[in-house]
Amino acid sequence: MRQIAIMGFGTIGSGAFDVVNTNREIIKKNLGEELQVKYVLDIREFPGQPVEKVLVHDVDTIMNDPEVDVVVETMGGLEPAFTFVKKALEAGKSVVTSNKELVAKKGVELMAVAKAKNVNFFFGASVGGGIPIIRPLLRSLSADDIDQVSGILNGTTNYILTKMDREGTSFEAALKEAQDNGFAERKPEADVEGYDACRKIAILSSIVEGKFVDFEDIYTEGITKITSEDFEYARQLGWAIKLLASSWKEQGHRYAMVSPVLVKPENPLYAVNDVFNAILVHGNMVDNVMFYGRGAGSHATASAVMADVVEAVKHLGENIYAGWSEEKRELSDISMSEKQFLIRVKGDVSRQSELATKFGAGQLIDADVAGEIGYLTPVLSEKAFEAAAAKTEGILQRIRVQA
Amino acid sequence: MRQIAIMGFGTIGSGAFDVVNTNREIIKKNLGEELQVKYVLDIREFPGQPVEKVLVHDVDTIMNDPEVDVVVETMGGLEPAFTFVKKALEAGKSVVTSNKELVAKKGVELMAVAKAKNVNFFFGASVGGGIPIIRPLLRSLSADDIDQVSGILNGTTNYILTKMDREGTSFEAALKEAQDNGFAERKPEADVEGYDACRKIAILSSIVEGKFVDFEDIYTEGITKITSEDFEYARQLGWAIKLLASSWKEQGHRYAMVSPVLVKPENPLYAVNDVFNAILVHGNMVDNVMFYGRGAGSHATASAVMADVVEAVKHLGENIYAGWSEEKRELSDISMSEKQFLIRVKGDVSRQSELATKFGAGQLIDADVAGEIGYLTPVLSEKAFEAAAAKTEGILQRIRVQA
Repeated sequence: MRQIAIMGFGTIGSGAFDVVNTNREIIKKNLGEELQVKYVLDIREFPGQPVEKVLVHDVDTIMNDPEVDVVVETMGGLEPAFTFVKKALEAGKSVVTSNKELVAKKGVELMAVAKAKNVNFFFGASVGGGIPIIRPLLRSLSADDIDQVSGILNGTTNYILTKMDREGTSFEAALKEAQDNGFAERKPEADVEGYDACRKIAILSSIVEGKFVDFEDIYTEGITKITSEDFEYARQLGWAIKLLASSWKEQGHRYAMVSPVLVKPENPLYAVNDVFNAILVHGNMVDNVMFYGRGAGSHATASAVMADVVEAVKHLGENIYAGWSEEKRELSDISMSEKQFLIRVKGDVSRQSELATKFGAGQLIDADVAGEIGYLTPVLSEKAFEAAAAKTEGILQRIRVQA
Repeated sequence: MRQIAIMGFGTIGSGAFDVVNTNREIIKKNLGEELQVKYVLDIREFPGQPVEKVLVHDVDTIMNDPEVDVVVETMGGLEPAFTFVKKALEAGKSVVTSNKELVAKKGVELMAVAKAKNVNFFFGASVGGGIPIIRPLLRSLSADDIDQVSGILNGTTNYILTKMDREGTSFEAALKEAQDNGFAERKPEADVEGYDACRKIAILSSIVEGKFVDFEDIYTEGITKITSEDFEYARQLGWAIKLLASSWKEQGHRYAMVSPVLVKPENPLYAVNDVFNAILVHGNMVDNVMFYGRGAGSHATASAVMADVVEAVKHLGENIYAGWSEEKRELSDISMSEKQFLIRVKGDVSRQSELATKFGAGQLIDADVAGEIGYLTPVLSEKAFEAAAAKTEGILQRIRVQA
């Protein structure tokens, strides 16, 4: 019998509590012994609920109990999560977390404490919810030179974009519907501005590089400026608009970026809709592999949390490399990276030769939107694009195209 | 510096040799030390090729060399692969294989030897080529009750079915094209009759059950009887026809089956085309997760082989549970399992009431094929379906529908 504690009884913490209870026999079979939640830490009371029996309000009850081998952190946010997690590691307990902010911001420090204490700090649930991605990257693609990771890493924005595509609605209307259906928060900035996806791609980039990639260095653009007209052009082209979080190598540089991108049907991410997430990984040997599933939600995320707990219990007293070194990997400025752009400009087909002169030979796209015309540029650097755009009148929109 | 040996310099063996050489630095970074191929065993000579320098013809050169820690088996087939692998394990070497027949037929015995000798027997490349699936099932979904695994596990048949769908060609014409393009063997039975997929779903079923599921017990139906008319009905319905290898729990029973199946667009397997493979896993907590990629090919499969080698070297002297027990899990006869069927019958819409009486209230499907009509049955057991079909005149085809 192994005892664990859960810190934070919100969406994911209560999901983890459910998983332990509902799948007791499965976990016992896979772990070789029974798992029990000895404590749940929360500031709230839950009168009459099963959790009441194990509820504690003082974190030191957990820290001081030598019977607790693994602590699950599902509070979210930086504090007090960081203080509690560090304390647990220093007390010789392994920690499993779903907290992407904590991992992206404080991962290096916490991994170092885990190593020094010969315990583990696992965070498989911090990216992609229930989708296995962190461990496969570390353990199943370890013979590949991974040159690109692109993901739909935020379910809220994917739901909104899918709605806009299917129903022709505006961003504002789709956001409101997502909020009404519980798929978006009342304060939606973290999702719709791309901040959530940014932290997740920082984690994946760090794993792939084996070095610390700072999320604050990643160019991040959300979906708030995407309009129903943009989708007219996407439909005309037969493409989709997705919020992609990408990290890639190009001529010795490492780039990372979060932005809305036009995705072609031959890309497996094209068909990933609604709240689903997916991560497309390209290796020089394995080619493309994709991991798909629910990137959020109580039980899906808790499934990943509890799988990490099983691993942590199996490796008590043995620190497993499951992160990155403290060395920082600098990202190159995206201005040198190259791609195609779709622009929408005021006017009509008569602008073709002007646009070709400024951006290079591309393709006019007429999506039957009154008073404007689209133009698909050739592949050019972000810098060259910006220079040409600065000299062009009446640009209404620009969206990158996924190669 | 760690030394390995590769037995069999065919498609996958030569791919593994390439991976070690091309990705030397990546492997060194991930493993913490350098990896070198000390021997390649093959009966052939390869004059003038780099492999020549390490080529050996006597397996005992490998077995008797204590410097060789890990042996890669990429010969395929049961013998001499089985004898050589067993010998290697008994000599205290870990073995990594891509050989699905070996794993499906002799896995239990080889796992026992590995355990007794405190070495490892890894076979991540035996299912899905380069797609990480075995290790994620074992390590990342260990807190889930996995009630269904369905896969497109054979690239050749998926290529043929995709061709038939897109181009309206016959099975024979699509097979010939696949053969001409090197995507199908001159003797295509193992692929088109479903035998290859059968061994792979047996391996996945055994992993999920933790017990031995014998491939010889699995109902297996290939794609040789699928016609261009079938695709007329699929198109009419907006569905795809895929060769699915499935394993699922239903009312306490474990079923497994390989057969052509109609797949609806909301199923993520629907969009998996050409030579690509994908495995859809359903767990009671994680819901659906899908793993997608190249299920075959020299470098993709070798990527999985070499990732297993990295794991094997990291765990020298420590046997890792990565398979199933020797206890056999009996499969239930599929006659009691329930699903919808599409049948094609001679005649026209006038048969509706007769078909409804025999199969239950369903739906007529008119795909404009002369002299026949389609009927989508309600959900019923295979047994009830067979009984009704036996009493029905002029049945031209029956295809199962994925729920």
